[in-house]
Amino acid sequence: MRISLLALAASLALSSAAFAADPAATAAALREKALTDPTAWTVVEDLTTTVGPRPVGSPAMTRAKDWAVKTFTDLGFTDIKVEEFSKPSWTRGAESASIVGPYPFKLSIIGLGETVPTPAKGIEAEIVVFKTYAALLAAPVGSLTGKIAVVTQPMVRAQDGAGYGVAGVMRRNGASEAAKRGAVALLIRSISTSDSRLAHTGIMRYAADVPKIPAAALGVPDAELLERLAARGPVRVKLSLASTTSAKTVAWNISGEIKGSAKPEEVIVIGGHLDSWDVGTGAVDDASGIAITTAAAKLIGDLPTHPRRTLRVVMWGSEESGGSSEAYLAAHKDEVPNIVLAGESDFGAGRVYSVMLPQGAAAAPQLKGLADVMTPISVLISRDPARSGGADTEGLQQAGVPVLSLRQDGTRYFDLHHSEDDTLDKVVPAELNQNVAAWAAVLYMIADSDIDFRALKDAK
Amino acid sequence: MRISLLALAASLALSSAAFAADPAATAAALREKALTDPTAWTVVEDLTTTVGPRPVGSPAMTRAKDWAVKTFTDLGFTDIKVEEFSKPSWTRGAESASIVGPYPFKLSIIGLGETVPTPAKGIEAEIVVFKTYAALLAAPVGSLTGKIAVVTQPMVRAQDGAGYGVAGVMRRNGASEAAKRGAVALLIRSISTSDSRLAHTGIMRYAADVPKIPAAALGVPDAELLERLAARGPVRVKLSLASTTSAKTVAWNISGEIKGSAKPEEVIVIGGHLDSWDVGTGAVDDASGIAITTAAAKLIGDLPTHPRRTLRVVMWGSEESGGSSEAYLAAHKDEVPNIVLAGESDFGAGRVYSVMLPQGAAAAPQLKGLADVMTPISVLISRDPARSGGADTEGLQQAGVPVLSLRQDGTRYFDLHHSEDDTLDKVVPAELNQNVAAWAAVLYMIADSDIDFRALKDAK
Repeated sequence: MRISLLALAASLALSSAAFAADPAATAAALREKALTDPTAWTVVEDLTTTVGPRPVGSPAMTRAKDWAVKTFTDLGFTDIKVEEFSKPSWTRGAESASIVGPYPFKLSIIGLGETVPTPAKGIEAEIVVFKTYAALLAAPVGSLTGKIAVVTQPMVRAQDGAGYGVAGVMRRNGASEAAKRGAVALLIRSISTSDSRLAHTGIMRYAADVPKIPAAALGVPDAELLERLAARGPVRVKLSLASTTSAKTVAWNISGEIKGSAKPEEVIVIGGHLDSWDVGTGAVDDASGIAITTAAAKLIGDLPTHPRRTLRVVMWGSEESGGSSEAYLAAHKDEVPNIVLAGESDFGAGRVYSVMLPQGAAAAPQLKGLADVMTPISVLISRDPARSGGADTEGLQQAGVPVLSLRQDGTRYFDLHHSEDDTLDKVVPAELNQNVAAWAAVLYMIADSDIDFRALKDAK
Repeated sequence: MRISLLALAASLALSSAAFAADPAATAAALREKALTDPTAWTVVEDLTTTVGPRPVGSPAMTRAKDWAVKTFTDLGFTDIKVEEFSKPSWTRGAESASIVGPYPFKLSIIGLGETVPTPAKGIEAEIVVFKTYAALLAAPVGSLTGKIAVVTQPMVRAQDGAGYGVAGVMRRNGASEAAKRGAVALLIRSISTSDSRLAHTGIMRYAADVPKIPAAALGVPDAELLERLAARGPVRVKLSLASTTSAKTVAWNISGEIKGSAKPEEVIVIGGHLDSWDVGTGAVDDASGIAITTAAAKLIGDLPTHPRRTLRVVMWGSEESGGSSEAYLAAHKDEVPNIVLAGESDFGAGRVYSVMLPQGAAAAPQLKGLADVMTPISVLISRDPARSGGADTEGLQQAGVPVLSLRQDGTRYFDLHHSEDDTLDKVVPAELNQNVAAWAAVLYMIADSDIDFRALKDAK
């Protein structure tokens, strides 16, 4: 194993000598240009201002698709493709919740994505508060009959967003777990690190063979109020949720390319997702990712000579409720062997602090200068391999495509994510541009190299 | 003048020798006790949890009045008084606003206090954006005919809240100024330092002889979105506001006392206001002020010997839309000569950094030790005299009562103030208790002294 890796490294070192004298110098120049380039800000400003929120199945998503084609065109991308697919969609209606007793109080809530509606007259019931999701799971079957289950487990703030997965389980599975125990509805504390009343939505799923009960998230202060009131005595809450579903909605993955100069058939697939939740304007999730990857590729496209391989930016069309990853793989199954690498920017515009490459790539001689290129923008090359390239690259990854991940500071991301507060003003232009600089430098060196990430993986 | 001041100071120095050996030592002990005392937190938690929002004229305000009497009783206050007065009230109804074109978008808004309603079907019109209030004022009469005026001037964040007055003018007077120019409605950017979608309400007034047009505040990101859209082309907005008014509502100022041990007829009037806006739970505005002053007086009341003078805590009943200050003066006109000093805590629970006393008092020998008592909690004694004791003490001040002001760090106050986000979780217990410590120490030394603040004023 060790011998073959060394042999491979030697052969890579030799072949890389045939490339541009110093790709690292070009990457460094791209980095500097990116730090003051207006493209990313223009893209995120334009998408959030002229299209607004753009859930799958909405008229806004159709406008977003047209915006994507125009944006790729205006920025000089070629081979622009609009790949249609279909998926079910869910559309929010009027929603409200109130404390009925001990005194009337309007709660701040938001229905979870794909929740069933309540009856038109709403559901009114006494609440049972669980301070952790584990406590709900520990409740016996039948113990919540006729009650509204309220889970108030807080989310942990963490730079890498690790608190999301831990708390997110109650959003995804909570309704069915509460229903198993007899509950008529579920309210959860928002999966949010904010102290805002504005609640946090996101996708949920129902288990088979369990009654489907309505589920919504409470603003963090509202969840804490219910905790305090329930500690004093019985609390009754009324919940009204309306929504409609469509079994088959049209969606699109839209892509544009910066064609490779030597090996155009070898493709690096990057991008962000064009769809957003229906609240806020999807600025950090994920107009920023769209803007970062588009601007990075555009800067590379502006070079006198394109790198050897093709860069393809994909604006995936259905990340929030799933579908675009599978659709992308289905449409590009035959191309998979030629997809060198895939990665997505989908964690807001917080600064990049680490680049995670496929197994073995950090030590590849073709990327020897990369660490020094990244140092001035405070980015390190991780020794750990990327585990995921992002939700929209999962299909490709499962089909064997190597992935990369530019890790971002998400300390504030979950203050905004999936809430009305996900708006343009939360994007810090200097941080956005630091992302563009990191992506441009990394992408250029990989695109202009002959690294076979699959071979590195095999070599291990 | 100079001679008489010196003579006065000498006489004060002599008479103070007759008091407790070291009032500063007692004040320091109160300060230490206050830093860990649970009273203030208990009060703010209980009021916000069991009563909730409590606008004048609401059923909640009646519950708040009963809560106040019970709280004073439970904490050992005496001479508890409920002083009824009447005033007009205004009650919010359903409110909404949307961008109609270039595409539909639900705006986050809140009606300004005392706005007239729109017609039931709403008002739909093209907007005209002014980036400053001065720009609106510069618009010619007739130039806004049939339009919705939008003023997007931002509020400046400042420790002492100085940005509020500057930006607040557009809230108070903007509707009539827009109406003079022909506008059919006014939207302002929230008078807020937050970047939240949650909008900021507050009182407004109509000028005589000008048509009354509806007025609401936009969430800060919503105001910025309208700015950006208006820069691209015409924008149409639809606004619907409902509200009802009552010419005569019952309100109450409620008070309790810590009776003075030597001069009980000499009264120091302090407090906070019990009423709040109808959104949020009035935690920083002003359950915190109620809690701080009540807890400080309660700690003093717990001493083996009360200070010489009486401390009276007033929970004023109508600060937000005015009325309690005038009512308090009317009910206590005859007592004014005996009211030694008045002050209110009404700026949230941010830490106190400065004590402003009446003119000349900082140098009074009876308060000689006060500066050293305040140093450990990072509070200085200002050399400048207090200009105001707070909105609810204005009547007393105009009648000649000297005032004090404990200046607080309001850096974050206007992120929360008058919005749905004014909730208990925003109160930091350690900061709340630092306020109690500062008030308790200052109040004790003043109450146990014979300082005649009016004489100091006269001496100048």
